[in-house]
Amino acid sequence: MGNIIVAQSGGPTVAINASLAGVIEGAISSKYDKIYGSINGILGIKDDNIIDLGEIANSDPNFLKKLKITPAMYLGSCRFKLPSVESNDPIYNTLFNQFEKYNIDAFFYIGGNDSMDTVDKLSAYARQKESHIRFIGIPKTIDNDLMVTDHTPGFGSAAKYIATTTMEVIYDAKIYNSPSVTIIEVMGRDAGWLTAATALARNENCVGPDLIYLPEVPFNTEIFVNDLSRLLKEKTNIVVAVSEGIRDASGEYISASTGTLDNFGHAQLSGAGKTLEYLVKERLGVKVRSIEVNVLQRAAAHISSLTDIKESVALGKNGVKYAEAGVTGAMVIVKRVSNAPYAVEYDYAKIHDIANEAKEVPKEWINESHNWVTTEMLEYLQPLVLGEPKLEYNAGLPVYVTR
Amino acid sequence: MGNIIVAQSGGPTVAINASLAGVIEGAISSKYDKIYGSINGILGIKDDNIIDLGEIANSDPNFLKKLKITPAMYLGSCRFKLPSVESNDPIYNTLFNQFEKYNIDAFFYIGGNDSMDTVDKLSAYARQKESHIRFIGIPKTIDNDLMVTDHTPGFGSAAKYIATTTMEVIYDAKIYNSPSVTIIEVMGRDAGWLTAATALARNENCVGPDLIYLPEVPFNTEIFVNDLSRLLKEKTNIVVAVSEGIRDASGEYISASTGTLDNFGHAQLSGAGKTLEYLVKERLGVKVRSIEVNVLQRAAAHISSLTDIKESVALGKNGVKYAEAGVTGAMVIVKRVSNAPYAVEYDYAKIHDIANEAKEVPKEWINESHNWVTTEMLEYLQPLVLGEPKLEYNAGLPVYVTR
Repeated sequence: MGNIIVAQSGGPTVAINASLAGVIEGAISSKYDKIYGSINGILGIKDDNIIDLGEIANSDPNFLKKLKITPAMYLGSCRFKLPSVESNDPIYNTLFNQFEKYNIDAFFYIGGNDSMDTVDKLSAYARQKESHIRFIGIPKTIDNDLMVTDHTPGFGSAAKYIATTTMEVIYDAKIYNSPSVTIIEVMGRDAGWLTAATALARNENCVGPDLIYLPEVPFNTEIFVNDLSRLLKEKTNIVVAVSEGIRDASGEYISASTGTLDNFGHAQLSGAGKTLEYLVKERLGVKVRSIEVNVLQRAAAHISSLTDIKESVALGKNGVKYAEAGVTGAMVIVKRVSNAPYAVEYDYAKIHDIANEAKEVPKEWINESHNWVTTEMLEYLQPLVLGEPKLEYNAGLPVYVTR
Repeated sequence: MGNIIVAQSGGPTVAINASLAGVIEGAISSKYDKIYGSINGILGIKDDNIIDLGEIANSDPNFLKKLKITPAMYLGSCRFKLPSVESNDPIYNTLFNQFEKYNIDAFFYIGGNDSMDTVDKLSAYARQKESHIRFIGIPKTIDNDLMVTDHTPGFGSAAKYIATTTMEVIYDAKIYNSPSVTIIEVMGRDAGWLTAATALARNENCVGPDLIYLPEVPFNTEIFVNDLSRLLKEKTNIVVAVSEGIRDASGEYISASTGTLDNFGHAQLSGAGKTLEYLVKERLGVKVRSIEVNVLQRAAAHISSLTDIKESVALGKNGVKYAEAGVTGAMVIVKRVSNAPYAVEYDYAKIHDIANEAKEVPKEWINESHNWVTTEMLEYLQPLVLGEPKLEYNAGLPVYVTR
């Protein structure tokens, strides 16, 4: 039997290495022979930068266990868009020669929308050339904006980090008995899934954020100021969660409206959080701060969701199973069977129906006032953040693996 | 026997409630009768906003366990500076009348420099009035800048969060094979202890930050640009840690030099991280981003240091023991006996020698090039981040306690 090759692409999540571990585990117990890894996405195949993952997994019995909870990309990433199949670009020839050289029977690409586009094109080219090689996409994105799949690997862990962070910020915000407003800016240019996850911080130990604004509905600064003044009459410390992508009715980013020049003369764009911080200070004269939940949203493996990690591993394993069964040009997906008890099934879908489209938060999952989410959203989010992987610590820090 | 009262003040850390739990535990097994808590620092005594902590601890057998790992201040905080004792301000009379009303024998204030100033003044006033009441300070600050004590409660947990975050940011930064610079800005206006903690991210699984700049030595932008260009010839992805408080040779904050106006006409000060981001983009034309390690530095109880939590509890307990023994006008302190194996002793020191002074990083613990720390610093920091408290999770989020 032939070999397989796996690569990772796009921006990091904390679950993308779990899917890599899943592919390796799946391949070990498959009919496939060698398990190659391509460094820096598809570029590693082009440039012959390829490692033997089976050998690495064999040499350290804890490798896969550690890999599953290691953030970002063990194999490195790339941002590389293949030219169209019709272009007959020489890169296709290069890649397929490499596949032949390494006796590849199946290629697995763990990534977001752009990576799925690559899988789509490679499988179309293979069909055209009557190649036997199978091409399987394994999704990942913290943004949760891929179509067809119920949710994306990496999202649950990001949601858990954001909900926990929001709760800890609220504990921090409520210590003084003088009025204050705290604005938390969450990633998500077009989809509000991550910002919605701040709602999970409302529980028996925490009041949760007071207001939540998603990019799927227009943001009105006057209504925002009114929402805030009303709330400030009822309670002392207000916490607001906003998506970085909130826009006004004309579609302009709220972040664009405070463009200033830095001392080199560059236009300096403030994010939505900073912009609203200035607005609140100006209009309400109350103590206000904004917090940008930074890159840790996609890197904080120290508080990942066990549900997310397990599903990411399972998707990798299932990808290998589908390839063995002859599937190609497909992405593995999660189907939710029920919320409570939470149950999912794995399947695959034609990648052509998924690539280059984005899934937004349904309007019905945002409340009528456009400043919170509905019960349906909470029921959807809740199972995805459940469980904590057991981390190993060394000298006080989590143990991850690196090449 | 009389009662005790405890309060919390200043900015949050994740260990300040551990010290509160220590005071409660210490008082339960002491000769003292009731354990009162004052809401919002000393203001709760003034305004008669006082709760019975003994009752709360009795009603929930898990209360103290949960309190020990809850971030921020269970009792709330205040920013209130007592007028001088000589002023004979009526507030002193009000407070001591309250102490009499509640039959208080000892007052414990968990806080930073300002809170120690309050303890100093109250004990001086008591001496003057020949009052029997004892006043004990219990330190806390993520900044680690209190004199006499080897380190401060809250610092070890903040250091652990910062080191872990730095490691995760480095994993995030190194995925692309194109040159990049990532600048991490860490809290610490005058003392570089927290920024130095990023050095702990250099271990067998992580290269660690490449450059570290503390506020104790002047920051020179030309040398910084040279340091970076040199490194960019050797490796692809550079990660730099800077303190928010770095200053040039004339003492001007680096953050002040890119002052711009927002669209309301306010002077907008960029932090050190953003300022250096613009500088690198301008001078080196390389992909660059800056990350402000936000308020989570003092709130991320989900990754606190067990060593820190245990010591914070012990300091609270010892405070009660010292008060029982007649000590007053003192702050409990940690003395380091040895680094390896790590061992400490608890003691107390005259508060008058501590209040209103700040402890900086010794110049000998910064390397000659002023861009990293020495082995002495690493040996000092390492034991403080060790160990992980066992957290309870509910619905995917850590369980903390709230009033």
